[in-house]
Amino acid sequence: MIFTLGELSDLLAVELRGDPSLRIDGLASLKNATAGKLSFLSNPRYVNQLASTQASAVILEPALATASPCAQLISSAPYVTYAKASQLFAPESATEAGIHSSACVHPSVVMGEGVRIGPNVVVEEGVRLGAGTVLGAGCSIGARSTLGENCTLFANVSLYHDVHIGDRVVLHSSVVIGADGFGFAFDGRQSIKIAQLGGVQIGNDVEIGAGSTVDRGALDDTVIEHGVKIDNHVQIAHNCVIGEHTIICGCSAIAGSTSIGRYCTIGGGVGIIGHLQITDKVMISAMSLVSQSIPEPGVYSSGTGLLESKEWKRNIVRFRQLDDMAKRLRELEKITPGK
Amino acid sequence: MIFTLGELSDLLAVELRGDPSLRIDGLASLKNATAGKLSFLSNPRYVNQLASTQASAVILEPALATASPCAQLISSAPYVTYAKASQLFAPESATEAGIHSSACVHPSVVMGEGVRIGPNVVVEEGVRLGAGTVLGAGCSIGARSTLGENCTLFANVSLYHDVHIGDRVVLHSSVVIGADGFGFAFDGRQSIKIAQLGGVQIGNDVEIGAGSTVDRGALDDTVIEHGVKIDNHVQIAHNCVIGEHTIICGCSAIAGSTSIGRYCTIGGGVGIIGHLQITDKVMISAMSLVSQSIPEPGVYSSGTGLLESKEWKRNIVRFRQLDDMAKRLRELEKITPGK
Amino acid sequence: MIFTLGELSDLLAVELRGDPSLRIDGLASLKNATAGKLSFLSNPRYVNQLASTQASAVILEPALATASPCAQLISSAPYVTYAKASQLFAPESATEAGIHSSACVHPSVVMGEGVRIGPNVVVEEGVRLGAGTVLGAGCSIGARSTLGENCTLFANVSLYHDVHIGDRVVLHSSVVIGADGFGFAFDGRQSIKIAQLGGVQIGNDVEIGAGSTVDRGALDDTVIEHGVKIDNHVQIAHNCVIGEHTIICGCSAIAGSTSIGRYCTIGGGVGIIGHLQITDKVMISAMSLVSQSIPEPGVYSSGTGLLESKEWKRNIVRFRQLDDMAKRLRELEKITPGK
Repeated sequence: MIFTLGELSDLLAVELRGDPSLRIDGLASLKNATAGKLSFLSNPRYVNQLASTQASAVILEPALATASPCAQLISSAPYVTYAKASQLFAPESATEAGIHSSACVHPSVVMGEGVRIGPNVVVEEGVRLGAGTVLGAGCSIGARSTLGENCTLFANVSLYHDVHIGDRVVLHSSVVIGADGFGFAFDGRQSIKIAQLGGVQIGNDVEIGAGSTVDRGALDDTVIEHGVKIDNHVQIAHNCVIGEHTIICGCSAIAGSTSIGRYCTIGGGVGIIGHLQITDKVMISAMSLVSQSIPEPGVYSSGTGLLESKEWKRNIVRFRQLDDMAKRLRELEKITPGK
Repeated sequence: MIFTLGELSDLLAVELRGDPSLRIDGLASLKNATAGKLSFLSNPRYVNQLASTQASAVILEPALATASPCAQLISSAPYVTYAKASQLFAPESATEAGIHSSACVHPSVVMGEGVRIGPNVVVEEGVRLGAGTVLGAGCSIGARSTLGENCTLFANVSLYHDVHIGDRVVLHSSVVIGADGFGFAFDGRQSIKIAQLGGVQIGNDVEIGAGSTVDRGALDDTVIEHGVKIDNHVQIAHNCVIGEHTIICGCSAIAGSTSIGRYCTIGGGVGIIGHLQITDKVMISAMSLVSQSIPEPGVYSSGTGLLESKEWKRNIVRFRQLDDMAKRLRELEKITPGK
Repeated sequence: MIFTLGELSDLLAVELRGDPSLRIDGLASLKNATAGKLSFLSNPRYVNQLASTQASAVILEPALATASPCAQLISSAPYVTYAKASQLFAPESATEAGIHSSACVHPSVVMGEGVRIGPNVVVEEGVRLGAGTVLGAGCSIGARSTLGENCTLFANVSLYHDVHIGDRVVLHSSVVIGADGFGFAFDGRQSIKIAQLGGVQIGNDVEIGAGSTVDRGALDDTVIEHGVKIDNHVQIAHNCVIGEHTIICGCSAIAGSTSIGRYCTIGGGVGIIGHLQITDKVMISAMSLVSQSIPEPGVYSSGTGLLESKEWKRNIVRFRQLDDMAKRLRELEKITPGK
């Protein structure tokens, strides 16, 4: 893909300062850019890399434009402009137009225009696929599930039955949507399976990373609202509700029936236990365990931080004595003159 | 699916108080139920929702029957009765009877009656499939592996060779059973692979959630006993033994050669290091790290709990001073008069 | 597979003390071995099992040879010799020679000799496959990706486009290489996707466990160097660099742009946040969170250790008071006579 700077200025709706006929064939960081590349400066940490960049053009704030040694695309939000530019250079899906001859598509399936179905895809009875949706090789779409327009499923995604997905949703390889929630009733001797009769609802503009799972609800649906972005290896249990535009980083797990608000950021490896309510705009730092509802926006953490193991062992022994230490401190305070 | 209340009373073997001809077309919570739904009351927290439920019938304990505004199914264990009822309303598998024309089944494969094999399934040499077992689209069954009767594998499950699975086992999408255990011998320069020559044995009535993995043994087999229930994203390493009816919640990992007893509950995100012995009836709370054997039943935890990050940072600094604080406290106690 | 002891002595290049015509049909631990099995003694803990083993031969150090009740293969590194022996007894891949009739291989694909492609495999345009490489059932290889010689991909592996893999690489089932890194620019209202334009480079002799993921880079490539071994459920985010011969245990996650040195050992369930530098020969213990760069080799840990929940609750309350306790201790020290 090649664009002229003039075309990029138009497509990105930003001001160009420089030669509109310059040809741009890709994006690169300030440090690694070579001639023909477009770069960007959004993090002030990298401002010192600007003067020496070999990029042909750079996206930056108006205030920094004069410091640039090359052409400029002027943006009040350079990182957002870079994101939009990156989409222009993304390679097209290799899934060919139409339905591959090896795909098994039930005759009842309803499809919009331009749907692409790759090799070995299986689409069961009653499925609806919106216009422009692409199913990569080996995907399986369960009975009565629906996908909106312009969704992209990469290879080997598994959707169970009765899963409903909005427009422009991206599901990466090995994602599983609609597997049974983990529900059993213990009869004193063994665990009796609770059939998971709910479904899954996923809004528009959701992206779900490789290997992540969203379980179907026990009775009601599990819900992922518009604009939620979920990284790899994330587990969303049955009957969770994830609010609009929330971000969930890799390897986090949300247990059953927990609701998370809008515009939250859940760090990597976070665990959130079941039946909690997390309000809007909460940030949880990496590998924290959330075991109570969070009614106030803010930043929350848990853990001990990392120590060299020798030092860690010394302190960890004291952690086990902490209650005892607190009592002894209180005792000393009582008997020390002047307290 | 529609049942009359009379039919449900018979099928669930519980007493009906109400009109046996009432038609029930599904299950719902007390709060969300509408006419035609069967609900249940098992958690006393929800007793105040009983009076206003719109359900047509409710499963509950005898003591609460008079408080119900609708027909009742009387059970001494309402949650177990609900579990059994839920199974009656579960939709049937969409995998059609017989062997799909696109499946690759080795001629040596032995099958019981009523086996269903979906599109693009691969079944290698010497496999045995018990009566009524269903293999979803895209599953791969390695050489000489065996499945008992009435197992269900959802789409895109991978079984390696020499994996032995009992009856009524459910494996969700992207489950991998029998991948190589993680074993290498370091020769001072590089890691030499230890071929994993053992297999995997899985008992009856086991369920394993989406994306979970059970590795094959190094020499002996990895063993999952009867009735074990495993949630999504769980890792069972080589040569583990998981005792009967133990529950393992999502994203937990058990390292190699560890044995877990019967009727344990392993919370979500728990890590258990290798070569440990965990006795029966142990509960481990979410995200705990188990680094020693546990010879006594009980409840075990680790971690610091969640704090607002500002407060967490203040305390975490002190955690690193804990050994020093303990020594200073001891010193003060020595010199304080009256101690 | 059956070898004589004489053949094994030659193949493993170790001295045989015993009858070279003895037939060995497998490997077993000292404790479980029966006649016909080869065992090994590498961990001194098991030396007391030597006298009573029923093995026909044992791999051990010269100093222990006289204590053996059976034939001996003498090795200065018995565990390494065991690893090499185990490879001799590994069953062959069931994937048949040639290209299965159900595979979809683009006509532009270039293949070395002896490539084996299983059922339902999809290989897109411009892919190159080195001699002896085996693709298990249901694998998907994206456009322009390359694999070196003698790689093994088990069933249902997903490689995206522009992924470059060296020789003798093993990828287990449900591995996903080259999915989009998790990158978004927030425009104040929603997250704008940053197309991930980099690729993935994987060196020689790398093994990646079931369900693990390695994301493609944002601009530059994500890099896994030679000899790295990665267990199941591991997440390597975009633009990470993992140094040669590093070991990453199950369920660990490395966030974006972090570099890990050579010969490191990352325990299970470890989280490493983004943009860090970890030097060579660092060991991180299980379930630690690494939130700062590590410039010195050594062993590092975090967490509180496991306690019985009652005891844990008492101490965890005090953890929240730790900063307060430290201040009160300092205060007492100031006013205590003799300090």
